[in-house]
Amino acid sequence: MPSDELFSGIYARGEVATAVSSQAWLRAMLDCEVALAGALASQGAIPQDACEAITAVCAEGAPEVATVAAGATATAMPAIPVVDWIREQVGAGYAAFVHVGATSQDILDTAAMLVAKRALHPLLADVRGAADAAAGLADAHRATPMVGRTLLQQALPTTFGLRAAGWLNGIDEAGARLAAIAGTRLAVQMGGPVGSRPPAVAAQVAAALELAEPTLPWQAIRVRVGELAGALGVLAGVLAKIARDVTLLAADEVGEVYERGTPGRGGSSSMAHKRNPVAAISVLACTTRVPGLVATLLAAMVQEHERAAGTWQAEWGTLTDLLRLVGSAAAWSRESLECLEPVPARMQENLDRLADAGVAEAAAPLRHVEGANELIDRALAARTLR
Amino acid sequence: MPSDELFSGIYARGEVATAVSSQAWLRAMLDCEVALAGALASQGAIPQDACEAITAVCAEGAPEVATVAAGATATAMPAIPVVDWIREQVGAGYAAFVHVGATSQDILDTAAMLVAKRALHPLLADVRGAADAAAGLADAHRATPMVGRTLLQQALPTTFGLRAAGWLNGIDEAGARLAAIAGTRLAVQMGGPVGSRPPAVAAQVAAALELAEPTLPWQAIRVRVGELAGALGVLAGVLAKIARDVTLLAADEVGEVYERGTPGRGGSSSMAHKRNPVAAISVLACTTRVPGLVATLLAAMVQEHERAAGTWQAEWGTLTDLLRLVGSAAAWSRESLECLEPVPARMQENLDRLADAGVAEAAAPLRHVEGANELIDRALAARTLR
Amino acid sequence: MPSDELFSGIYARGEVATAVSSQAWLRAMLDCEVALAGALASQGAIPQDACEAITAVCAEGAPEVATVAAGATATAMPAIPVVDWIREQVGAGYAAFVHVGATSQDILDTAAMLVAKRALHPLLADVRGAADAAAGLADAHRATPMVGRTLLQQALPTTFGLRAAGWLNGIDEAGARLAAIAGTRLAVQMGGPVGSRPPAVAAQVAAALELAEPTLPWQAIRVRVGELAGALGVLAGVLAKIARDVTLLAADEVGEVYERGTPGRGGSSSMAHKRNPVAAISVLACTTRVPGLVATLLAAMVQEHERAAGTWQAEWGTLTDLLRLVGSAAAWSRESLECLEPVPARMQENLDRLADAGVAEAAAPLRHVEGANELIDRALAARTLR
Amino acid sequence: MPSDELFSGIYARGEVATAVSSQAWLRAMLDCEVALAGALASQGAIPQDACEAITAVCAEGAPEVATVAAGATATAMPAIPVVDWIREQVGAGYAAFVHVGATSQDILDTAAMLVAKRALHPLLADVRGAADAAAGLADAHRATPMVGRTLLQQALPTTFGLRAAGWLNGIDEAGARLAAIAGTRLAVQMGGPVGSRPPAVAAQVAAALELAEPTLPWQAIRVRVGELAGALGVLAGVLAKIARDVTLLAADEVGEVYERGTPGRGGSSSMAHKRNPVAAISVLACTTRVPGLVATLLAAMVQEHERAAGTWQAEWGTLTDLLRLVGSAAAWSRESLECLEPVPARMQENLDRLADAGVAEAAAPLRHVEGANELIDRALAARTLR
Repeated sequence: MPSDELFSGIYARGEVATAVSSQAWLRAMLDCEVALAGALASQGAIPQDACEAITAVCAEGAPEVATVAAGATATAMPAIPVVDWIREQVGAGYAAFVHVGATSQDILDTAAMLVAKRALHPLLADVRGAADAAAGLADAHRATPMVGRTLLQQALPTTFGLRAAGWLNGIDEAGARLAAIAGTRLAVQMGGPVGSRPPAVAAQVAAALELAEPTLPWQAIRVRVGELAGALGVLAGVLAKIARDVTLLAADEVGEVYERGTPGRGGSSSMAHKRNPVAAISVLACTTRVPGLVATLLAAMVQEHERAAGTWQAEWGTLTDLLRLVGSAAAWSRESLECLEPVPARMQENLDRLADAGVAEAAAPLRHVEGANELIDRALAARTLR
Repeated sequence: MPSDELFSGIYARGEVATAVSSQAWLRAMLDCEVALAGALASQGAIPQDACEAITAVCAEGAPEVATVAAGATATAMPAIPVVDWIREQVGAGYAAFVHVGATSQDILDTAAMLVAKRALHPLLADVRGAADAAAGLADAHRATPMVGRTLLQQALPTTFGLRAAGWLNGIDEAGARLAAIAGTRLAVQMGGPVGSRPPAVAAQVAAALELAEPTLPWQAIRVRVGELAGALGVLAGVLAKIARDVTLLAADEVGEVYERGTPGRGGSSSMAHKRNPVAAISVLACTTRVPGLVATLLAAMVQEHERAAGTWQAEWGTLTDLLRLVGSAAAWSRESLECLEPVPARMQENLDRLADAGVAEAAAPLRHVEGANELIDRALAARTLR
Repeated sequence: MPSDELFSGIYARGEVATAVSSQAWLRAMLDCEVALAGALASQGAIPQDACEAITAVCAEGAPEVATVAAGATATAMPAIPVVDWIREQVGAGYAAFVHVGATSQDILDTAAMLVAKRALHPLLADVRGAADAAAGLADAHRATPMVGRTLLQQALPTTFGLRAAGWLNGIDEAGARLAAIAGTRLAVQMGGPVGSRPPAVAAQVAAALELAEPTLPWQAIRVRVGELAGALGVLAGVLAKIARDVTLLAADEVGEVYERGTPGRGGSSSMAHKRNPVAAISVLACTTRVPGLVATLLAAMVQEHERAAGTWQAEWGTLTDLLRLVGSAAAWSRESLECLEPVPARMQENLDRLADAGVAEAAAPLRHVEGANELIDRALAARTLR
Repeated sequence: MPSDELFSGIYARGEVATAVSSQAWLRAMLDCEVALAGALASQGAIPQDACEAITAVCAEGAPEVATVAAGATATAMPAIPVVDWIREQVGAGYAAFVHVGATSQDILDTAAMLVAKRALHPLLADVRGAADAAAGLADAHRATPMVGRTLLQQALPTTFGLRAAGWLNGIDEAGARLAAIAGTRLAVQMGGPVGSRPPAVAAQVAAALELAEPTLPWQAIRVRVGELAGALGVLAGVLAKIARDVTLLAADEVGEVYERGTPGRGGSSSMAHKRNPVAAISVLACTTRVPGLVATLLAAMVQEHERAAGTWQAEWGTLTDLLRLVGSAAAWSRESLECLEPVPARMQENLDRLADAGVAEAAAPLRHVEGANELIDRALAARTLR
């Protein structure tokens, strides 16, 4: 039952939606079983041909999403029907070599990390794209004065370039943290039923899946999930700030930017004259949903004993939504910034209002923005997310 | 792209999932346009045959979900493709009589309220079912003593009937508030582009759709959405409390209840001896996700001017998730309570431990639970959700 | 250690701060013990002179806040030091008649409800004041045309009166729900250690304290707390919407309203020319903090058995903050609306821009806002919070 | 008006409360003005004796909290009264050299970072203490078998040492991230009114205050605040998980641990036989309040233009609460773990139940926990927070 399909044009922009789909989750679970079989075979714990059989069936197909979903109602655990499917496919001769020493949570947690890693790939590409666009605006508009505004009131002159440099710096820092998490903190789970499996298997599975190897199984110690959630929340906050700026600057009375659009873009069902900054609005539609999801994942860290009764099971959908929404926000943000057209004439007009109010600095704005270019250079030079 | 389908066995239990599906949203939007056409025709504002044509095409079909979703990316507004589809279907002769005087938000907001009302129907049926089951337990176990526990420590005797009466009262009160909202607070939106449409049309549309008539258009005044969210959050909190009790009482060392299951139910992929209270765990999986969603809808009440740039657009997916998750929790809760089997012998065993600790009351527990039966009677008599 | 005192000028506006202070909590706990003694004496369960002694010491003094706070670290339970203090004050002869049959949670929960009721009194007075101010603006500005704005873009004409009528209606509806909760849902807790105390004592205590009598003790069934939180969250959302409108309309480039201030009000440490809408900004400072607090209270509804180990104890500070912040927001909101000065000339200027963009309706705005006056009348007539 | 003093015994444990007090905030603001004066004097921008005068008055005294609080109501900005006080103290001759080129937000943001850094000092000391205690338990209980529990059901044997190793690893990883933030991400703010001040002043102020130097002023780009919030939220989640385990293991029916206490500790007002794990309960009281606060700070990242109208002002109290609550949770957690007494006999009894259920592994538990010691060694070796 596609819950959000109707609204997917807004909430599921970019490639991230595919990366967190039910099919992607299933694929990640199968990849995990394949990596586990590989590790066990290389240790001699299962026969090599069993490993090959498991690898082959997982390469050739996947269980039906609906079957797995239905199967999960009996156990609150979508990994069991997946294991059952593999066992069925490899046949009686190899069934006993599937999922050996593992528990459902090993598969689901490792799959969650794989899904996250795969989703972060297009997400970070969009973050980089958004940063590039912001960098372009910062560099191009070093000499475009505009009114700096505090508490929504005109304050003193700044430049549009400096504003864009701030956006760039925020995107870059938030993205760099996410990239670091993708590189070092998304780890396999391979602890067996109660987390006591020796770490050798985990190490091999980690290598095969290009995930990190954890110090310990983390079945009920959800630091990694919380860190990922926090970093996604911070990125969403930065993107939202930029989008809020865009919607405010695009207001008719301010008129300092607009989003270039294809014909039909930004229209209204009742008002033909409007030109809405649709991409920025969509960023806000996605990011407004994020802090609540982060809070859910942090609250869900309270997991009992060796596996939680409820809070763990709450993670799957929440993490999926969080990745999709932040990924969509990144795609929309890139689009918004790539299409963003500053209107220097309106910026000047608004500055004139400040000069009229008797603010001397507004009469010679560029002379009064002493640090702007140095700061822009710093922002351009400090980019770490490449 | 069905985002949550893989996990729908847990998060989309019961009929509520169908009631909040993309198809259901589309149907609600079409119903709204039909009701609008009816109101306008009865006022002579559009020809009767235009109304009939609109009614007919909406009865016979609906636009494709994927088409509407794709169309919404250009405007951040899924109502526009729906209106376009109706206009196309009725043809050039009647197209001008579709959506007259309305704006996209009228259709989406009214649809949201209709979707909510239709989702609350099965949801409240499950709430009533859960209340019935709790009432049955309360009445049947008036003379089943158990240890009352505070701070997870044994405190003094109570009865299982009184515990169940508390559950009943909580379910009933939370459900009654939701029923009141369904009856009086879910209202049409029919204000036109900036909310100044005279109220007569809204009144007729409300009557046709069996929704409430608002005092004013509420385009950017989201009290109704916030109230609905709050009431769903409270219900989720009660259901979670009960499910937490069940998982704790079902722990092997306590062993005072279990969920009767069909064979295969409650199993583990690695541990054949386990009997997990799957329904209660699933309640917690759903309800853990709720407070964050409520917070999102409350935070999204900050909507600018006559229509918000972002916070309104964040509501659709959040409300859909919230209804589905609370509805699923209600279905799981009913199932959990209907299958709940108390184990008086284990209750007695645990009481004996308290008696052994020198607590005199534990030796004659029923004599010391003076108010229990009167309180159970009150809970049974006070039921307001019928 | 006064945690928020430095920021109390913003977060603790109005009388509500006094109503939720540590002293007010202590007073409420003492009132509860007095009411309990009264109920017990009237039932003959304790001697009349014991009741009088308890009443007298509680009327004459109160324990030190610091002593109670320190005492609570040993038990995580601030009621115990209060009971100890009363026992000490009444002396050995009466000590045994203090707190008879009650448990700490009875006192803390009843005190929480009393504190809430007492805090809602000034809070609702400010809500009424804000509604009065909005009503005044609505009535006075029926013929003040302004641009309606959707997605922060100019849309079509409306009137400032209609905008204010929307504010009024939102404030009134959110306030009415809170008033209903104050009147019927804030109930005593008097269940004894495990919630089985017969209801007669609760009934008498409720009458004495002018709180509602619950059907059952609600020690671990927190519907009442959740409902209160939800209603406070909804009110905060409405007040935030209005404040957001004010900050946007007060932006220099829009310039359609300002907050009249005393000299020095709204100033900046570095920019003498600025006139910031300080009251509206303070509303937003307070209300931004609210959805997270509501989510906390909803999440904390998951309370184990007869008394929770942690989630209950999380309520006290959260509820205190929530009442104080929403109360402060109400006080600031009233202030903002009472000082709000519309600038019809700027409204006309902005409308002219719309007319210049070729929107015919903007040329004769009042003629195109057909329903505005009828809607304003409805908003004025529908006020239920008196 | 000390808002939370009554509950400070629970929510304000440890030294962190002092570090985030109103006095500490004031001191941080004064330190910031002193560092600014030092930087300006060294650049020749203000006279050396002005710098000395400013330094002297800030060393000798501080404005009254109540005065600053009251002054902030006129501007929603507590830095202005502080600057006024310094100017008054240094007298007319030097007043013009105070706060030169700075804006209120420079002072408040830098103070916030200083307060955070100073609060993280005792907080991380408690985190280290808790980690030490967990490490001690892990090492001491390598050969203490216990039942591993999944979904609150008995699963398979594990050791108490491995459980404690998981706790250790979680505490250490969450603490290490916070330490990294304290070391590199808490940065000065010194951008002037609209963020365009050249970076040289910021560099010197950063050196003086031992805070990081930011690439750019971050007035409305709140990545640093969001990162800090996220890391505090993750730590809270880990501490809550441990405390939940403790409360569950301490339940009478499980009885596998208890908190050693001083006499009177853990008592009840109505039940003398109880021994409540007060420290663990207090951890949960604090941590339950955290996810909502993190969500607030993430949502508040949406800050307009060069300074936000409301969301920035919401940060101060939220960050204060967050630091205090997580700091208190760390202190309580350390106390809980330092007092934690495992009960091997009860662990064995509960394992026997599993053996009785026919689970072969339970009969020879240590033989079946193959990886436990290797994993414990890894956890002990991997500690990074020193």
